[in-house]
Amino acid sequence: MSKTLPTRAENYAQWYQDLVIKADLAETSVVRGCMVIKPYGYAIWEKMQQTLDKMFKDTGHVNAYFPLFIPKSFFSKEASHVEGFAKECAVVTHYRLKNAPDGSGVIVDETAKLEEELIVRPTSETIIWNTYKGWIQSYRDLPLLINQWANVVRWEMRTRLFLRTSEFLWQEGHTAHATQQEAIEEAERMLDVYAEFAEKYLAIPVLKGVKTPNERFAGALESYCIEALMQDGKALQAGTSHFLGQNFAKAFDVKFTSKEGKLDYVWATSWGVSTRLMGALVMAHSDDDGLVLPPKLAPIQVVIVPVYKTEDELNRVSEVALKVKKELEQKNISVKFDNRDTHKPGWKFAEYELKGVPLRIAIGPRDLENQTVEVARRDTKEKNTYQLTDIALKVEHLLDHIQDNIYKKALNFRESKTCKADTYEEFKKLLDSEGGFIHAHWDGTPETEQRIKDETKATIRCIPLNNHKEEGKCILTGKPSTQRVVFARAY
Amino acid sequence: MSKTLPTRAENYAQWYQDLVIKADLAETSVVRGCMVIKPYGYAIWEKMQQTLDKMFKDTGHVNAYFPLFIPKSFFSKEASHVEGFAKECAVVTHYRLKNAPDGSGVIVDETAKLEEELIVRPTSETIIWNTYKGWIQSYRDLPLLINQWANVVRWEMRTRLFLRTSEFLWQEGHTAHATQQEAIEEAERMLDVYAEFAEKYLAIPVLKGVKTPNERFAGALESYCIEALMQDGKALQAGTSHFLGQNFAKAFDVKFTSKEGKLDYVWATSWGVSTRLMGALVMAHSDDDGLVLPPKLAPIQVVIVPVYKTEDELNRVSEVALKVKKELEQKNISVKFDNRDTHKPGWKFAEYELKGVPLRIAIGPRDLENQTVEVARRDTKEKNTYQLTDIALKVEHLLDHIQDNIYKKALNFRESKTCKADTYEEFKKLLDSEGGFIHAHWDGTPETEQRIKDETKATIRCIPLNNHKEEGKCILTGKPSTQRVVFARAY
Repeated sequence: MSKTLPTRAENYAQWYQDLVIKADLAETSVVRGCMVIKPYGYAIWEKMQQTLDKMFKDTGHVNAYFPLFIPKSFFSKEASHVEGFAKECAVVTHYRLKNAPDGSGVIVDETAKLEEELIVRPTSETIIWNTYKGWIQSYRDLPLLINQWANVVRWEMRTRLFLRTSEFLWQEGHTAHATQQEAIEEAERMLDVYAEFAEKYLAIPVLKGVKTPNERFAGALESYCIEALMQDGKALQAGTSHFLGQNFAKAFDVKFTSKEGKLDYVWATSWGVSTRLMGALVMAHSDDDGLVLPPKLAPIQVVIVPVYKTEDELNRVSEVALKVKKELEQKNISVKFDNRDTHKPGWKFAEYELKGVPLRIAIGPRDLENQTVEVARRDTKEKNTYQLTDIALKVEHLLDHIQDNIYKKALNFRESKTCKADTYEEFKKLLDSEGGFIHAHWDGTPETEQRIKDETKATIRCIPLNNHKEEGKCILTGKPSTQRVVFARAY
Repeated sequence: MSKTLPTRAENYAQWYQDLVIKADLAETSVVRGCMVIKPYGYAIWEKMQQTLDKMFKDTGHVNAYFPLFIPKSFFSKEASHVEGFAKECAVVTHYRLKNAPDGSGVIVDETAKLEEELIVRPTSETIIWNTYKGWIQSYRDLPLLINQWANVVRWEMRTRLFLRTSEFLWQEGHTAHATQQEAIEEAERMLDVYAEFAEKYLAIPVLKGVKTPNERFAGALESYCIEALMQDGKALQAGTSHFLGQNFAKAFDVKFTSKEGKLDYVWATSWGVSTRLMGALVMAHSDDDGLVLPPKLAPIQVVIVPVYKTEDELNRVSEVALKVKKELEQKNISVKFDNRDTHKPGWKFAEYELKGVPLRIAIGPRDLENQTVEVARRDTKEKNTYQLTDIALKVEHLLDHIQDNIYKKALNFRESKTCKADTYEEFKKLLDSEGGFIHAHWDGTPETEQRIKDETKATIRCIPLNNHKEEGKCILTGKPSTQRVVFARAY
């Protein structure tokens, strides 16, 4: 099966698209720009959700649910927000269909036109802050630390599975605070949560930084982000956390009485990650044979494949396989025993390579004699024979090693693709040859950033947090600069 | 706080509405018919989700995600389905807004009109079966056992929090099978799962039965349901499971090759429960002082309230409280220690009664002397003083007793409100005096059912599974009948 994937070197974009489909993660739907997330892909997303949800709750957040629809007028209340979001969106104008007079099907009932159109949420700041107005009167009501798991819609003309789809799944945190400092701390805390999740679970190293004003979230005073590097040298924004100042509180008139009895607008943050992380996961680690999943997010961590000729052999192998399965499950390792007789072991090996199962255990008649099993790692393709005694402990260690190894490999790759450019020529040459993150001086103006983008397709991914200060000259204009920023071509 | 609730006897509908809002479960939003599910309400829903999700997975199902939007033409493909669902729904007609020329805000960009309108899913049979067409070729691909957690929209003119809202959250299972029998077994299995969930977790006894053709799901050959009784004597349909025959397979041309090499249409089921269960939970158990939550679904199972006068007393009480909290948490009991100094114990007692916390532990200076705590049950309002030794074990048992007691109370109530009527006069009198489930003979025709509904507002809730056969005469027409069916006025 894996043979039918193009290699990454041949055609990275096609490799990605084919892999997502062949590994049963997702497929495009008949509805323009919307995807179907298939069970295997959704199982990975569920693991991401569970992990993140626990991290949010451990940092004091609770979940809630707000309406899918937002009145059109809400978007006009926050000036930059409407520019950023309200334009490309799904608009509900009617609430009824009727039978076509000619019997050809159903048509829109023009008498059922909404007085005010409803927008399918592209993000929920407006409806949530309109709701918070009723919830916040005093400093005692603050902070309000709420998260929502939801679907959102941003009409996209060019879509790619997981990376850019018109509908996607995400979580959006929306918090309200009594002070500016507290809100900034919250935005930074959630950035740290995202970075920890990316590195410990996705096994993807990320840069933490802030966006330039050009790239800020529509309505934010500061947008924090984590940026990851994919195997084709392009960057991918994997999560954002925004300090929104008092913008939404002012737009929706949300004030509170402070301890001192003073009336003031509430301070806000919002932060989100989405099914885009699925795309990052695939592109960061997978190889020409298929997915490489980090054990902590793999729906199946270990697959056991019996190797046999006769039914008697299968029976004897199965006995051992089920014993191993039970031992592993007692250590909370998820195991699949694939004893289907419709497929040969070789076909199964390729299938689970394609699906990125971290460890494969093969058991054949010779293993029975020797009291051994053959264990193959998906990440390194190493095969080793281990004694059955203590196999569960061995597997547990191997899974940890794989998780570490995948992360280190991605980190080494990123380091090898991170460099400095001091001239525009060097910058452009690096972009075309290596890609990756390029640290370069920039004069700090949106115009220069835009011109570099127009000319090279590279954008400033972030200004790293705690960035090293260094005098220099802008690669484009030669104007003075106080620090390097991180450029890359990006998804 | 609870003093401000109307009593159930005074105004049941208002009591329900006020309780949902005052207990912080949900509130109406500015968007017509859509609700905001607040953190406390959502925490209960999350517990329902987790429990059901595990039950679905234990019965072999996996989760997936399908698009929010459904092309309008899909609804016309299954004749009865379009009648049932496509009429009252949110219709997306455009995908872009633009700035109004007069600067007054944003307006719909008429140039961005969709070629075919999209319907916000009211249920997903059509889009899912259109997708299954690509997934099913052979009997080897069957059964397909998929569930989706999602939001759906059915435009409602008269809405009530949780019970009937334009947008609601639910799960919808959609399975595909090689044989009719297997599909029927699946529909019945999921009905059993729902009934078990209702009785063991919601603590609500339910009748299992099938709907009459009048009340069937649009597109189903058989609709199974669980029916619960609320405290006002009205019934509430708490979950449905449908045997869809080959209707959707035919509408979307989904065929498979059987083991014998024969081409046939696939057999289908679908089944769902929604946030409506939140309404059932509130209406089945709560009293005039507030919510009564079954311990298995209560976000906070035990609240500890310190009773003190001086700071020194608070410190000494807190020490014991935190020790008790830790012991309870070791038994996986969720505990809140409310040591806020902004509210008096009496206020807190009323607050947690309103919120339905199953057990309240009060600890005061005298308890410290005696090494005791005072424990109050929410369900019976009983208060008892217990020794600190073994308090965790005691609490664990009490929570089990409360879960049982709430269920038994609801069961006794239902039994007391279940009766037989042999004449139409008796039937109408019972409906107006007692309400509840009325077992009565019906001639089996849709016309009679409709006339009874028009005249009395009572509908046939279900024909119970394994119904007792009994010769009789229809209460309305006097025509012969072979069994009693269950009538009630319903939500």
